[in-house]
Amino acid sequence: MDIQTSSRTELIDITDRVRALVKESGIKDGICVITTRHTTGGIIVNENERGLRADILDLLEALVPENKKYAHNSIDDNADAHLRAVLLGMSETIPVEDGHLVLGTWQSIFFVELDGPRNRTVHVKIIKA
Amino acid sequence: MDIQTSSRTELIDITDRVRALVKESGIKDGICVITTRHTTGGIIVNENERGLRADILDLLEALVPENKKYAHNSIDDNADAHLRAVLLGMSETIPVEDGHLVLGTWQSIFFVELDGPRNRTVHVKIIKA
Amino acid sequence: MDIQTSSRTELIDITDRVRALVKESGIKDGICVITTRHTTGGIIVNENERGLRADILDLLEALVPENKKYAHNSIDDNADAHLRAVLLGMSETIPVEDGHLVLGTWQSIFFVELDGPRNRTVHVKIIKA
Repeated sequence: MDIQTSSRTELIDITDRVRALVKESGIKDGICVITTRHTTGGIIVNENERGLRADILDLLEALVPENKKYAHNSIDDNADAHLRAVLLGMSETIPVEDGHLVLGTWQSIFFVELDGPRNRTVHVKIIKA
Repeated sequence: MDIQTSSRTELIDITDRVRALVKESGIKDGICVITTRHTTGGIIVNENERGLRADILDLLEALVPENKKYAHNSIDDNADAHLRAVLLGMSETIPVEDGHLVLGTWQSIFFVELDGPRNRTVHVKIIKA
Repeated sequence: MDIQTSSRTELIDITDRVRALVKESGIKDGICVITTRHTTGGIIVNENERGLRADILDLLEALVPENKKYAHNSIDDNADAHLRAVLLGMSETIPVEDGHLVLGTWQSIFFVELDGPRNRTVHVKIIKA
């Protein structure tokens, strides 16, 4: 799945697109693994509410400040993005039953952009039980 | 699996119940995916020791203070619980071999309650290799 | 997979060894689940660059200081290692396609030693789609 992000840091709700891929797969029972191939982005599951999305980005800034001196040697000067990605993780696994993702009412799946804006790829793999 | 929690924040050891579900499944070789459908709870694997359980909750309070002003717009005023859930993650995946979870001696599986007490659901999905 | 670590905290790149196990398995399409059986080690995926490896360990020290008083009752006095392991997580799941791990150019798989030096075990489980 291709994603075009528009800010340095941003949460992109990909739930509907993942649901569509589960449906397309025809798999009724199994698991769905969502991964990113990037080292400056993460995959998380939580509620999609405007204030909370801001809180998540604020928390990442509090734990891993952007304007701190890091040792990472890179022309991008983006160590904070890598470190935030380590805290969030690069995959989530969600059960599939009766052809649907087993998600709670308030759960949305997000790609978290940590060093955008960029073109990003998220991989969705569905495994039959 | 239904869980009744009794405090606002709490670690509930679900290892024995997950082991029983693996046994019931009859699956000898595969993986076991443990997920929560809640946005204010998490799944972790670590040692079940009273002091360490307290340390984990203290760490979450240090990283994500309960009494801080957050942007999350909710009647529950529980942004801290969502943010802590993001740090912990909503799933863990554990191999199954010879009909048993591949866990180390000190590894226990926990549902982490972050906004209780509540009735909670944990989903256990076992996939054959 | 056996790993001999040489410092108290350290990132060990295991990407090549995981790739070799995927190849050996002969599985062309599926997922690869990498787990640790230890409660004072973690599995992460990010870039293998010397400065960034140091930044990751520095971040863990900033978030979970080694020389703080913890409640964990243990002869090892290693609560910080357990807490850091909780933040990192004990598993990562990576898709397998065309017989290869679906990893981005900059993604390496690491075992993170948090209480070494020790002999460690990492478990790699490959599931066919």
